[in-house]
Amino acid sequence: MSRLTVYDTTLRDGSQREGISFSVSDKLKITQRLDDFGIDYIEGGWPGSNPKDIEYFRKVRQLDLKHSKISAFSSTRRAGIRVQDDLNIQALLAAETNVVTIFGKSWDFHVTDAIGTTLEENLAMISDTVAYFKEMGREVIYDAEHFFDGYRHNPEYAMATIKAAEEAGADMVVLCDTNGGMMPFALQQILQHVRSRITSKLGIHAHDDAGMAVSNSIIAAEMGFDQIQGTINGYGERCGNANLCTIIPNLQLKLSMLIVEPEQLEQLTCLSRYVAELANLSPQEQQPYVGENAFAHKGGIHVDAVLKHAHTYEHLQPELVGNSRRILVSELSGKSNVLYKAREHNIDLSKETPETKAVLDRIKEMEYQGYQFEGAEASFELLIWKALKVHQRLFELVGVRTFVEKIGDNGNILSEATVKVRVDNREYLTAGEGNGPVHALDEALRKALLQVYPEIRHFHLVDYKVRVLDGKDGTGAKVRVLIETRDERKKKSWGTVGVSPNLIEASWQALVDSVEYGLMNANKAKMKELRKAVKQFRMEG
Amino acid sequence: MSRLTVYDTTLRDGSQREGISFSVSDKLKITQRLDDFGIDYIEGGWPGSNPKDIEYFRKVRQLDLKHSKISAFSSTRRAGIRVQDDLNIQALLAAETNVVTIFGKSWDFHVTDAIGTTLEENLAMISDTVAYFKEMGREVIYDAEHFFDGYRHNPEYAMATIKAAEEAGADMVVLCDTNGGMMPFALQQILQHVRSRITSKLGIHAHDDAGMAVSNSIIAAEMGFDQIQGTINGYGERCGNANLCTIIPNLQLKLSMLIVEPEQLEQLTCLSRYVAELANLSPQEQQPYVGENAFAHKGGIHVDAVLKHAHTYEHLQPELVGNSRRILVSELSGKSNVLYKAREHNIDLSKETPETKAVLDRIKEMEYQGYQFEGAEASFELLIWKALKVHQRLFELVGVRTFVEKIGDNGNILSEATVKVRVDNREYLTAGEGNGPVHALDEALRKALLQVYPEIRHFHLVDYKVRVLDGKDGTGAKVRVLIETRDERKKKSWGTVGVSPNLIEASWQALVDSVEYGLMNANKAKMKELRKAVKQFRMEG
Repeated sequence: MSRLTVYDTTLRDGSQREGISFSVSDKLKITQRLDDFGIDYIEGGWPGSNPKDIEYFRKVRQLDLKHSKISAFSSTRRAGIRVQDDLNIQALLAAETNVVTIFGKSWDFHVTDAIGTTLEENLAMISDTVAYFKEMGREVIYDAEHFFDGYRHNPEYAMATIKAAEEAGADMVVLCDTNGGMMPFALQQILQHVRSRITSKLGIHAHDDAGMAVSNSIIAAEMGFDQIQGTINGYGERCGNANLCTIIPNLQLKLSMLIVEPEQLEQLTCLSRYVAELANLSPQEQQPYVGENAFAHKGGIHVDAVLKHAHTYEHLQPELVGNSRRILVSELSGKSNVLYKAREHNIDLSKETPETKAVLDRIKEMEYQGYQFEGAEASFELLIWKALKVHQRLFELVGVRTFVEKIGDNGNILSEATVKVRVDNREYLTAGEGNGPVHALDEALRKALLQVYPEIRHFHLVDYKVRVLDGKDGTGAKVRVLIETRDERKKKSWGTVGVSPNLIEASWQALVDSVEYGLMNANKAKMKELRKAVKQFRMEG
Repeated sequence: MSRLTVYDTTLRDGSQREGISFSVSDKLKITQRLDDFGIDYIEGGWPGSNPKDIEYFRKVRQLDLKHSKISAFSSTRRAGIRVQDDLNIQALLAAETNVVTIFGKSWDFHVTDAIGTTLEENLAMISDTVAYFKEMGREVIYDAEHFFDGYRHNPEYAMATIKAAEEAGADMVVLCDTNGGMMPFALQQILQHVRSRITSKLGIHAHDDAGMAVSNSIIAAEMGFDQIQGTINGYGERCGNANLCTIIPNLQLKLSMLIVEPEQLEQLTCLSRYVAELANLSPQEQQPYVGENAFAHKGGIHVDAVLKHAHTYEHLQPELVGNSRRILVSELSGKSNVLYKAREHNIDLSKETPETKAVLDRIKEMEYQGYQFEGAEASFELLIWKALKVHQRLFELVGVRTFVEKIGDNGNILSEATVKVRVDNREYLTAGEGNGPVHALDEALRKALLQVYPEIRHFHLVDYKVRVLDGKDGTGAKVRVLIETRDERKKKSWGTVGVSPNLIEASWQALVDSVEYGLMNANKAKMKELRKAVKQFRMEG
């Protein structure tokens, strides 16, 4: 039996979730991450449906993927025309992917009423389309839409549709629980029947409308099915698709199937949060395996036992999926969290020094205010330097101003900023402009500091994210800004964070951290000195 | 075979979820709602663990419950003492419930290492405690903690623990997947084995650490188990408990088991949101059956058909669980999404007019630019009015300026804005200040318009969201702003959207839409006129 393959449709079916709207650049970045993670198939989009997907397929060819095959999605040809005359089919061909995924109707009612053709013509549509793409040299995956509902209404016809796909040469026939209503025992019966009649490879595509998408996928895998389709974080229309972040570790760690390399599996939590970030959705804290609370333990009397015998209080080691254990509430556990975090940043703080408590208190206070240091390691390291009083300021703010002006309803917008900083008792006043006030601020700050720190010209802001922390106060709410900066010369990136009710102030904090950290990092001797100073505290404590 | 019973532990195990802290009054209110809904057993708390739970059990006796039995929870007696000398046991007795739920150890390792006693003494602890409460006239439910993990390590001992409970007279033996790691086929084997050896009634208590809690509960129900334990919305520690809001409709609507009356089932969505409200947690939009998106449709290809034959595109009628259908508008939309959405706004656009195409094209173009109308229905309606050229402007922008100023590193920040608008050839220039530039802008705009449109004083911004659309361009990227405004007098909210590379401009767009829409809506005659004008187009088209 060949290895079970995993097919990701986050970029197509997943993007149907309310609120998700991936840009082409988001889709390319996710593709790269899915490939790094070891996903077998990536369904990139539906070239017939919109120009964004066409652009994606053009650009994805330039990525250097190591493992994943890219698939383009479309329906069978329309009724009553030749395959080669169907514009959707031509768009699919033009996507130039090695794999195409064709979906067709399995439910007799949908054939006659939704697309209004005959049952015979539908079989021909399936057959023609699959055969056409086989002739064109493509690997063809056939998605049998509404298969289970169709089977329950007319099993003979549902079977005939997948037989048509098989006979036309489909490499994989995928049974879709499109409405997501299947219960486990009914599912098992149908899977068994199909397995006994179809010789080609079989897959499952489940939706979560009855909370069974993960389980139904696992049942299919345990019954020897060859492919599971799903999405990262279970994103998808309505209640979502089968969640690959749950299914993959279930298969690999519970059922001993090798899906990805163990080192890749350790990237799972990171992948889940990365996709959530690009989707601009808060990560689900309760999500199995990858959620922030998935391995959280309440503090108190049981903590000792949990720490001593974690394997009996957790269904598996969180590190296997790149997650970590969290101990809630107790002060002691908070301390060890910070120590753990500090160690991650190569800052070794022993438990005993009073400085550790200072750092701990400062972090707790800042996290309470809404700061978050995941993805803002540079701000975290600066914070430790500041708490230990080894931080050296590279410039002092005298004043900063931003102006945004718009004249007339359709007038151009002017965004300017001025920055005045003091370095070694000299003041530098500069102005900048940009697409918006933060952009202008960034320009002005760089201009000012460039005169003293020329290495700053190599730094570029590569990412800028805003999250409103407490939505319900309207525009008076706090915002958190995350900035990612890159030193082009050193090919190194770092993240910084700012929080304030004022977006400009929050951005300014993150910008200042970004520049300070970048300058520190560019100066090897200074970094060595700083880290030595941090070590010093540990030795003396 | 007697009817399967549902046991709710939202108030005990559910409240272990991070962030949940029910007051006694919350717990009483939830108890009342669970009784109205028809839940068989309600586990109210652990009287031995805290004074809040003792107060709850005292007060719950005053409720006039129609159906539910209240249960109090505690562990077996401690090792080495008599049952009647155990303070926890006495607290449990003092709760004066008809039902008690006793949990005990099934995993040999936990017996010897976590509670540090012998395997024999543990059996005696189970036996003594169950027998004691039977003597006291209680209905006794025995929860076998870590049963499945225990069974896999030492099946004989795990079986001996539940045998001890059965022989001592337990009315129900519940197998707990405390760490939530069970896969479906392994579960089935163990359930079968237990069913063949235990004659007393059997239940299941599942956790969701592997995403299987619902499915494992359903499997047990289909195998003839007698009780399912779970929580509303699946609340619980780590990844949560088995979600009763999914399990109950699965049992009743998919597997034809009568759990509650059909009228009670229609209260499910309401119950789910009520408990979320008291838990102070946002309802999960993606939740099966009860989520806001559970019956939402987005893909363009489907909507046409969905409207015609909803039963074939939904696994069941949303009304059966008290939910309703929603149609979303997005770039993937076909014409019919827009038409449906328009009808929801009482805008009747027929399919045939060229204006429909104009609206559709405009929406597609705007969505390509990054606009999104899910959650911004007011902007959507304004867009239709504008595309049909029936929109009447209520004010004209002459100019707008924002200033943000900060003096010194720790100085205060000043945020001000000026707005100049023209209404009926008169100009109004006003200034506002706020926590940030957008807040200041909002203040200034209101001040200006208040002079002409006094009803604006009832409008309040209640939510403000920012999303950066194309992160990788740094601060030069586009941002999308979503604003929710509420008319306090009319108790009505509406959402608007703005997109621009400049946050101030994007916010301004959303603010302007917010005010325009609010003012239109406050003016019934004008709305009528507008909608008549839209209708006109259809008639003429």
